[in-house]
Amino acid sequence: MLYKIAFEEAFALPTSLAENTPIGFTRADASPEEDLNTNLLDIHGHRLRQMDENGVELMILSLNAAGCQGIADAAKAEALATAANDYLETQVAKNPTRFAAFVALSMHDPAQAAAELERCMTQKSGFVGVLLNDFQSSGPDGNTMLFYDGARYDVFWAAAARLQAPVYIHPRTPTALIDDQMWRARPWLNLSVLGFASRVSMHLLAIITAGVLDRFPQLKLIVGHMGEHIPFEMYRIDHKLDRDRFPTMGMRRDKLVRDYFGDQVFLTTSGHFSTPALHCSIAEVGAQSVLFSIDYPFESIPNACVWFDSLQMNQHDVVAVGRNNALGLFPRLMQAPHNLTRKSAWECGVGGLRDGSATYGLYNASFNKRTATR
Amino acid sequence: MLYKIAFEEAFALPTSLAENTPIGFTRADASPEEDLNTNLLDIHGHRLRQMDENGVELMILSLNAAGCQGIADAAKAEALATAANDYLETQVAKNPTRFAAFVALSMHDPAQAAAELERCMTQKSGFVGVLLNDFQSSGPDGNTMLFYDGARYDVFWAAAARLQAPVYIHPRTPTALIDDQMWRARPWLNLSVLGFASRVSMHLLAIITAGVLDRFPQLKLIVGHMGEHIPFEMYRIDHKLDRDRFPTMGMRRDKLVRDYFGDQVFLTTSGHFSTPALHCSIAEVGAQSVLFSIDYPFESIPNACVWFDSLQMNQHDVVAVGRNNALGLFPRLMQAPHNLTRKSAWECGVGGLRDGSATYGLYNASFNKRTATR
Amino acid sequence: MLYKIAFEEAFALPTSLAENTPIGFTRADASPEEDLNTNLLDIHGHRLRQMDENGVELMILSLNAAGCQGIADAAKAEALATAANDYLETQVAKNPTRFAAFVALSMHDPAQAAAELERCMTQKSGFVGVLLNDFQSSGPDGNTMLFYDGARYDVFWAAAARLQAPVYIHPRTPTALIDDQMWRARPWLNLSVLGFASRVSMHLLAIITAGVLDRFPQLKLIVGHMGEHIPFEMYRIDHKLDRDRFPTMGMRRDKLVRDYFGDQVFLTTSGHFSTPALHCSIAEVGAQSVLFSIDYPFESIPNACVWFDSLQMNQHDVVAVGRNNALGLFPRLMQAPHNLTRKSAWECGVGGLRDGSATYGLYNASFNKRTATR
Amino acid sequence: MLYKIAFEEAFALPTSLAENTPIGFTRADASPEEDLNTNLLDIHGHRLRQMDENGVELMILSLNAAGCQGIADAAKAEALATAANDYLETQVAKNPTRFAAFVALSMHDPAQAAAELERCMTQKSGFVGVLLNDFQSSGPDGNTMLFYDGARYDVFWAAAARLQAPVYIHPRTPTALIDDQMWRARPWLNLSVLGFASRVSMHLLAIITAGVLDRFPQLKLIVGHMGEHIPFEMYRIDHKLDRDRFPTMGMRRDKLVRDYFGDQVFLTTSGHFSTPALHCSIAEVGAQSVLFSIDYPFESIPNACVWFDSLQMNQHDVVAVGRNNALGLFPRLMQAPHNLTRKSAWECGVGGLRDGSATYGLYNASFNKRTATR
Repeated sequence: MLYKIAFEEAFALPTSLAENTPIGFTRADASPEEDLNTNLLDIHGHRLRQMDENGVELMILSLNAAGCQGIADAAKAEALATAANDYLETQVAKNPTRFAAFVALSMHDPAQAAAELERCMTQKSGFVGVLLNDFQSSGPDGNTMLFYDGARYDVFWAAAARLQAPVYIHPRTPTALIDDQMWRARPWLNLSVLGFASRVSMHLLAIITAGVLDRFPQLKLIVGHMGEHIPFEMYRIDHKLDRDRFPTMGMRRDKLVRDYFGDQVFLTTSGHFSTPALHCSIAEVGAQSVLFSIDYPFESIPNACVWFDSLQMNQHDVVAVGRNNALGLFPRLMQAPHNLTRKSAWECGVGGLRDGSATYGLYNASFNKRTATR
Repeated sequence: MLYKIAFEEAFALPTSLAENTPIGFTRADASPEEDLNTNLLDIHGHRLRQMDENGVELMILSLNAAGCQGIADAAKAEALATAANDYLETQVAKNPTRFAAFVALSMHDPAQAAAELERCMTQKSGFVGVLLNDFQSSGPDGNTMLFYDGARYDVFWAAAARLQAPVYIHPRTPTALIDDQMWRARPWLNLSVLGFASRVSMHLLAIITAGVLDRFPQLKLIVGHMGEHIPFEMYRIDHKLDRDRFPTMGMRRDKLVRDYFGDQVFLTTSGHFSTPALHCSIAEVGAQSVLFSIDYPFESIPNACVWFDSLQMNQHDVVAVGRNNALGLFPRLMQAPHNLTRKSAWECGVGGLRDGSATYGLYNASFNKRTATR
Repeated sequence: MLYKIAFEEAFALPTSLAENTPIGFTRADASPEEDLNTNLLDIHGHRLRQMDENGVELMILSLNAAGCQGIADAAKAEALATAANDYLETQVAKNPTRFAAFVALSMHDPAQAAAELERCMTQKSGFVGVLLNDFQSSGPDGNTMLFYDGARYDVFWAAAARLQAPVYIHPRTPTALIDDQMWRARPWLNLSVLGFASRVSMHLLAIITAGVLDRFPQLKLIVGHMGEHIPFEMYRIDHKLDRDRFPTMGMRRDKLVRDYFGDQVFLTTSGHFSTPALHCSIAEVGAQSVLFSIDYPFESIPNACVWFDSLQMNQHDVVAVGRNNALGLFPRLMQAPHNLTRKSAWECGVGGLRDGSATYGLYNASFNKRTATR
Repeated sequence: MLYKIAFEEAFALPTSLAENTPIGFTRADASPEEDLNTNLLDIHGHRLRQMDENGVELMILSLNAAGCQGIADAAKAEALATAANDYLETQVAKNPTRFAAFVALSMHDPAQAAAELERCMTQKSGFVGVLLNDFQSSGPDGNTMLFYDGARYDVFWAAAARLQAPVYIHPRTPTALIDDQMWRARPWLNLSVLGFASRVSMHLLAIITAGVLDRFPQLKLIVGHMGEHIPFEMYRIDHKLDRDRFPTMGMRRDKLVRDYFGDQVFLTTSGHFSTPALHCSIAEVGAQSVLFSIDYPFESIPNACVWFDSLQMNQHDVVAVGRNNALGLFPRLMQAPHNLTRKSAWECGVGGLRDGSATYGLYNASFNKRTATR
């Protein structure tokens, strides 16, 4: 599919990479093209070439995790956010039809977060939403976890809703001390294998069940990795959220968690290129709730795109998930300086019989040949 | 689900039932409530009560098959069409918020068919589309089959497109002589078991591959019974329609059959309450191509509705398939005298937690209790 | 379906219910038939009647959670295990063709656990496997969590493998102090909504990735709740368990986690009657890895059975999941005193046309009428 | 997947190709490697190389359609069968671990067919079953269609059952005169697009509903092209085969058509590499009823294999469908001279982590690189 949009795609700030390095993920034997740090720092070179080769029109970039959320000192976290946002603006400005930006925020002080969000969304160019890396590290030892479901964060959620800035809740690595007895001794379970999803899904459910989405009906939330297993657990979540047992739960008593999907909650395919998981998600939350993404450079762009482009799925859903849902979710992408437009299946190279094709199907496919958007 | 719309729903004209009786389907031991002829003649009694009990807001009624298509004499077929349309208008007028009408047509003379369609759609009230029962019987012995993919039928297709009248292609019983060597000796295979679908799917493909939809891009076609197995065969149909082998095929060379689904071709669930077939269809042609219907009185209203209402499928698709897709396909349903409106999942009783429900799920369900729309 | 087998089904020991009560789950307004404590204590009355009415031939009973795992004092935990096992033996002996037993074990001392397991499996009657409630509470304040993936538990795993005793890893409620910052303030997320699954899935993965199944190739593990979302996460788990990054991980380097399913790891449908989740699980791990169960009395027997019996799924898989897989997993069920036998789809009332049925389908179904096995 | 078995794979007899040429399928601009006649005549060259490159261990070869069924003269049809069987025996003998044979038969005289079947299965080597090309052309003008559901064919079915020779019902092109009014003018619909499936599915249903499988419970039937849409229509077929309306139907009154699948009726993936159709089929008839095949040279070997090998489906089902189901269906494949053995997922290269793979998934896949079996 041509003209895909992807938006769980990380970059690193040159001045902060040393402290904010994805150390658990780097491999000593990585080739230069696979080196995570190199790929995090690169935007307009190897990354853009791969986008061209794999039919990705635009990436929304975000500061790599844990980013500001990993800094327990409020002033330092806020300074990092400002620096990252200023840097990213200049990078997007170099090629705004191919890149857009997520705001980075310190979440120590909700009012400060709202102010920085407003600065980016109204005074800067290229920003279309926010990405937060799970909870905010806080406290003198960095072991206090700030979650965003409490009433004190309403000032932030109000700003996000008002500014039409969808909020992507991305996972992060916990600091050592808050790591529980299970994960401490088994680090492989702590990260992207399952620990990330376990923590982020809880945080998302905390925000939903606190009633945040009810108080801000224009607010939109996004989670990656095919919904962090919430689509699979959807029946059981709604079945077990017994309102009589938990009368203090803030969410509307007449709504189910599933009711928010497709209107206020969305998920992406980032890093979980599982066809059964995709089908389960579409069945439970509908194709309008699902959007393509990659998780570059932690995932391979061709890997994600070969998987998505090879799906035997009707054109309507392919083009919605691969592109057009993102234009609905991020209306700023259709404005200057990005100026993206809705495209038909035909324009995206989905469906139809192309030049020289006598028969349709896999027959003529060269499976390593990827297609460029322009 | 409340407020479902169903539209492969037959009625019989009292004056023609004797000749147009569904003789292969009647059973000697049927109870009065199951008697086909009784149920075909009834509109405002037992039928409406079952609609109330099973959450069906509106039925689009059509003359029972083979109807005009079964009459080889053109004048008689045209007279039947006129009589059926006049009768049906008066019946719909008695309760236009619960019933609408499909035009019946003789297809002997395309210009006459177009004229009668125009009469019904512009001078009469309550008509929202057309239902044709497969091929038109013709010739002195009734054994000539008229298909509608030839250029002489363009006058009819032009009228249907111009009048925004979607055309439902419904199956019919063939007359004995055109019955081939297979079916003659094995009547059980000839009808709804598989013969209906075999013939109607061929006719639909004939119309599509002749290029009718290309010549009339506003034209919309509908087939029942979960698409008459076309969704299942979709890959193979497009794979094998080799344009080089069949240069005289009229369809655009740059389109696949699948490309028409959801824009110009739609299918209904009538009479095929198969969950695997539904999932296959949604995967191949998308939920926007699929619409609920029953095939009453050849099928049971509660049977169809229990099946549909019990599907574990996201609310967006349930409400689209059960209702809102029909309003897009038949825009006249949203005008007088029907005045139907798009409804949300909540309004349709889909999703949400209702009074007294502490937990969600099947727990509290009484599986024989059906719900009324008003 | 007749003759279903279910085996995440709890009972309470009368002498321990006061301390081991499922307090988070009881509701003040429960009717007598819904009262959890009453239903936990009952075996041969209301429970058996519901089994009859819903086509459940046999339940394997287990002591209600947290059971022995919730007792930080080793001697007390061991005494509870002995008492529960002795009591359950007498209960099963009253009706061994309808009930079998899971051994309860203290997991403080692996050698003692192995000895008690051996006592129950060789000297007692009616035991077919073990059920453990996640981690063992330990330490002076009860806040130390003992997980079973360390080498010291090999003596237990060796006994379970040698005695052909499959081990069910069931969730449990954590004690307050080990509860982390997320769950403490949001108790509704801690339990069956998602907390249970988050913890149990980690424990299961810890056991697998430690290489326990490699060291004991005859050992079989079971998890409930449709696999605690592991089937949905399967691609990502295997994708991210990078052997180069985690050289100390004990599992065989040439196997994937998915490779163990169907041979050594199995999952049940208990408490998660989600059709999309079932389909996702079957796609990822195969029908031979999936077994029916209910989670009574925390779930409704008719609810579980109506869901399962209404699935539109081929007979081979329905009968395997509903019954015959359990006979392969628990070979003792086919021996005295239970003497269960493999049954065909026809014997189980699955497929086939029964007396008086002229047509197949939902048509004649009365959806509240459930079927008895004898 | 390594070691796949495929068995809807055609060869042409050099002496009969001129009369039995697949004329509708040849293309003037075909490259030598794509030339149908060349590929039909070739067995040990290009065909075998592609098998090596794509993980196909063995093909069961069959005479290309319409074969003997297209010859209205009984003596000529019988002579062709004998010639084809004698020729094929010598070809298989050259490489019996990579090829096996289907018997070709004239079906004019059921006793003669049974005798030739017995000759091939008992006196010759390499034959494992029979392939029939739909109905037998007969009569002075070749326009009489002989179907095999009548009692006169019981002598043939008895032989096939006794000799453990599964019978593959393959489609064929009808002669011009029996072509009905629909197909005559629209040849593209007549062949593999949908006409093949329409006719073969009727013939298969005719045999089943005549009670042939009841009279010969050891008899096994196979259809290709993902079941010729019968899995999709399964609910409706069984729903509508009303026994009261059709009292002369021969099939057991207490069985459904679906009950025969997996025990006596099987289907292959030949020529229909549709993932939604595969999933629908597995849901309706179970993975034990489904077997891999290609339809070479009418389909591409790499195309079929790339599709199958890329499926995200559990290992149990992949290896069953790709290989082991075929060994159950054709027990002679496990005897001399073929000596095939059941293989595990690991042996077939399905699942597991291979040399140098740090992470699992599509990441390292080169999608054009195919794997050889030896």
